[in-house]
This record gives sequence, structure tokens and C-alpha cells, in this order.
Amino acid sequence: MNTYSIGIDIGGTNTDIGLVRNDGRCMAKKNLPTNQYFDASVYVSDICKQIKTLMTENVVEVIDGIGIAAPAGNYYTGCIENATNLNFKGIIDLPKLFHEHLDAPVVVSNDANAAAYGELVYGGAKGMKDFITFTLGTGVGSGIVVDGKLVHGKTGGAGELGHAILIPEGRPCGCGRKGCLETYTSATGIRRTALELLEASPDYDGPLAKVNPDDLTSKMVGDAAKNGDSLALKVFELTGYWLGIALANAVAFSGPEAIFLMGGPVKAGEVLMQPVRESFKKHLCFVYDGSVEVRVSELPDNDAAILGAAALTKA
Amino acid sequence: MNTYSIGIDIGGTNTDIGLVRNDGRCMAKKNLPTNQYFDASVYVSDICKQIKTLMTENVVEVIDGIGIAAPAGNYYTGCIENATNLNFKGIIDLPKLFHEHLDAPVVVSNDANAAAYGELVYGGAKGMKDFITFTLGTGVGSGIVVDGKLVHGKTGGAGELGHAILIPEGRPCGCGRKGCLETYTSATGIRRTALELLEASPDYDGPLAKVNPDDLTSKMVGDAAKNGDSLALKVFELTGYWLGIALANAVAFSGPEAIFLMGGPVKAGEVLMQPVRESFKKHLCFVYDGSVEVRVSELPDNDAAILGAAALTKA
Repeated sequence: MNTYSIGIDIGGTNTDIGLVRNDGRCMAKKNLPTNQYFDASVYVSDICKQIKTLMTENVVEVIDGIGIAAPAGNYYTGCIENATNLNFKGIIDLPKLFHEHLDAPVVVSNDANAAAYGELVYGGAKGMKDFITFTLGTGVGSGIVVDGKLVHGKTGGAGELGHAILIPEGRPCGCGRKGCLETYTSATGIRRTALELLEASPDYDGPLAKVNPDDLTSKMVGDAAKNGDSLALKVFELTGYWLGIALANAVAFSGPEAIFLMGGPVKAGEVLMQPVRESFKKHLCFVYDGSVEVRVSELPDNDAAILGAAALTKA
Repeated sequence: MNTYSIGIDIGGTNTDIGLVRNDGRCMAKKNLPTNQYFDASVYVSDICKQIKTLMTENVVEVIDGIGIAAPAGNYYTGCIENATNLNFKGIIDLPKLFHEHLDAPVVVSNDANAAAYGELVYGGAKGMKDFITFTLGTGVGSGIVVDGKLVHGKTGGAGELGHAILIPEGRPCGCGRKGCLETYTSATGIRRTALELLEASPDYDGPLAKVNPDDLTSKMVGDAAKNGDSLALKVFELTGYWLGIALANAVAFSGPEAIFLMGGPVKAGEVLMQPVRESFKKHLCFVYDGSVEVRVSELPDNDAAILGAAALTKA
């Protein structure tokens, strides 16, 4: 028999709400503008109305639970804790607010951890006990599964590999330190590398030279690389080199059987994945040779965040 | 009532065998010369004779188990697998060999993992669910405890943080790669840093200038630093800087509540620990502020390895 759960992906701009069947299919979705809300109880009340609509429209009477991926979402407390990019300040007790409207278990975590659970429950990591996911976006998120369970650490904040230092005294990071992985391999980092190479290549007259630097995106660099542009290919070669080191370092920690990559820049495909695999192979400690592979996430792009959130209820 | 277990620390030169009481006291020890044995079954037979002697001499009739810390010791299989610094080649099935002489559970792991269990069962990590140990020796070993259990990974080889790359394209490492943590912060790495600084300081005429470079040890550098020697202090300042980055990166992985340092160079005391703590504070991502501390192991120096091995039987 089919069962259903709700996955909610809270972003600074939008909130996506999906009804997810136990086989990993997202049956239907609703959307709310997060940034139009300033009162968390009104916001949660409106989310719950959308959940009830989703259930009615799809003739679903019971849901197993509600999984929520939220910025600064704490797995242990269920709270959003002092999120910097939401209008809701302080501590927001999501289970308490949801239980005023709906009687179902509520599980909360951050988006990177939810992505790892999505891969475990609905994606390529089914049946795996030890794996790691890296999500390349504005920053770099990571989720670490050890012995079948997500690593939360003492405070719920484990798995921030985007803020592991890759290059001591390297690029300044938004976190106030220098050389964090995400300054090199996030979408923002890729843009930064492209701008540095453009600056250092006055003779380059390819497609990226025609873009106003302020408008340059990592997707443009990816498209140019796929079309064989030499500067764009160099950007991805460097990105792959850096990311390969970080993945090899992650393996030295938990000895996983796979690492999954997801997020916008991964859509560039082999122009990123080939240098990643080369660098990973070069930098992996020999004791792990042959025991671990680097793969692309198997979650569908459009529903990955909702599936990840819904998967939290199966944890 | 007191119970007892056996801890065995297999080194390339010596094998230490200890009878450990459940309160963490090593009651008595025996020793065998590992490098004098070329047949593993004769070697294990002699170890078992020593265990029986230890039990008789201390009027102990029953032991809970035998914990063995061995180079290339695999927790999952109980075997020593292709150790490079032992006379026993190939796969050595320790539980099988021991059970020909003694009827007790046999648990095997490598020395760094055993050290972590020692800290958990008998040392400063009692009651902790998430912590990491770093052992500074010829190399750098690490043991990672997540949610109360040691992280073994897919193949049993997790927790090789000595071979996480700290500085891409940095110092050549014995593993064939470059920039591994242990090339900077092991006893060997400290010696290497001292030799580099001596080479770069022709005017220096302190105590370390009087030592033949081939004879220089990290302990000599530590002693000179404790006596205020400027070059030796600079060596530990750099070592602490590097180690602090590695500890901060480890926190970004598993969000532990403490990191424990052990091994020879840690005996240098505050000349190492102060720069470690400064660098750790500077390089720790702000989300972990106040949640994690860097501590010195609480296991007694002389018995740490035996206690760690014995603790494996309590895992």
C-alpha cells in the first residue's frame, strides 16, 4: 500500500511544499513566498492550509510525517535558530507551530542534511551505510551518513564541509575566515575563478569576454565550457582540482563507499566531473583505492529539495 | 566486582601485553620482541603463554576479552592485513590463532582507533558521544567517535586524518602524495620544520645549532622550546598553527564536543598547546564557537596503548 509524507523546502525567497509518495515520487507541489511573511505563526498556518489542500486534491487522508529543510534548522530541537536570511528572527519552534494545525510528526534539519537523506531514501545511496553528499550552490553544503545515520554532532551542526579550510590563508569567505572550500567550488566560487582568469587573460576574446563581469554566472561558464571555450574549461579544471582534494580529505575521515555531488554546477556534466575524478584519484590516500566512487546525485533536479525534506521523516 | 581484560599493543619492534582491570588500572605487563618472530602462529602462541602467566600471577581466573591494537589491524575482519612494518606478511587471522589457545572474544583495530576507545572507556572522553583523538607520533593517527561509536567506514579504514591534505602541493609524504597533515605535525614533521628553520637561520647559535642534523629529534626541539629557545618556539608556533587548522576542519566534519591530543610531541606542553588553541580558535567556523574544546589525553603515558587495546573489548 502506498503511504505519503510532506516535504517542505524553506528558502529565503520561496517555500516549496510537496506531497511525496513512499516510492519517491513527488505527486504535487505548492509554493509560498517566504519573504512576504514577517510572523512565523501566520507563515506556518498558511503552509498547513496548503498541506491540507494538497491532501484533499490528491485524495490522501493520512500522512506519515512532515519533513522540513530550513536554513539554520536544528535536527535536535526542531527549531530554526537565528537564521540570517529569513524575516523570522530568534528561535522558531516549528513542531509546536505545526501541531497547532496538523497532527503528524515534524522533523527539521538544514538543506544539506536533508539532501543526504533524500539520496539515502529515494536516490542513489539506497542501501548504503556510509556515504557523503556535497551540494554546490551559493555555498557548499554537505551531509554525512555514517553507519546508516546522518552525523549531527554535539549541537546538530555537523557536516559543514563547505567551511573546511582547503587552502590556508586563501580566498576570503563570507564566514570571516580564509580559504574555505566554498570560496573555490560553489557556484559563487566558480564565478570568482572565472573573473580572476578573465582579469589575467587580456588577450582572451571568447564568449565570456563579452559578458559584463557583474552579470557573469557559473551557468554561463558551464555553457561556455561545454562549447569548448578554453578559459571556461580552465575554470572547471581548477574547480575539479580543488573539489577532488576536498573529497579525498572527506574519505580520510569516514571511509565512505560513495560521494554524491549535486547542485547547479554539477549540471555542467563531464567538464566538471572529469577533472573532479582525476584530482580525487590523484589525492586519495592509497588505503582507500578501489573502495569509494564519486557519483552524481540520482535525485530528480526539480524535486530534490522536497524529496530530501520528505526523507527526513524516514530517518 | 572487578573484571579484567587483556590489552595487546603490537608494534614493529615490541609487543606489550597488559592485564587491565575494569576501572582502567593496568595491573601488570609483559613484553615480547615482535621483530624476532617470523611465524605468526608461534608469535601468538607465545603471547598466549604470557597472558596465562599474567592471569596466574595476578590470581585472575576469567578475562572478558582480548583487545589488540595492531598495524593494519582491521576491525571488521579481526585480521592484520598486509602490514608493511611486520615480519608477518599477507593476512593474519588473529581471532583464529588466539582461539587455538584461549577461549575469549578477540577484538582488533589499529592503534589510533584503539587510542580513541581508550579515551572513551578509561580517559577524558567518558560519557561523551562525539569526539576525536589525534595521536602525534612517527605519523599522525586519528580516531573518530560519532554518537558513541567509532567510525570504521566501509572497509574499516576510516579516520586517517594524518593523511588528509592540509596544504595542497605541500611537503612530500611517505604515502606518495603531498601536503598530508602528518608531514607537518607528527614528531617527524616537527623535526622537518626545525631542520628547515635551522637551514634558513645561519645566524642562530642556540642549543639546536649544536646538534648534528641527523641526530635531531622532536623531543630535543620540545626541550629547547620549554627553555625559551626562539627557534624551537617558532617550530612549535608553526606546528600549532597547522594543527589548529586540521582540528578546525575535523570539527566541520563531525561537530564533536572535544578533541583530544596525545603522543610524544604533546608532552612539550603549553609551548605546543597554546599555539594550537590560538590557531584552532582563529580557524574554527563560527557556528561551532563555544561547543568544542581541545584537550590533552587523560590516559597515563606509559599504559595508554595497552588501555586503548583493552578498551576495544568494551566497544
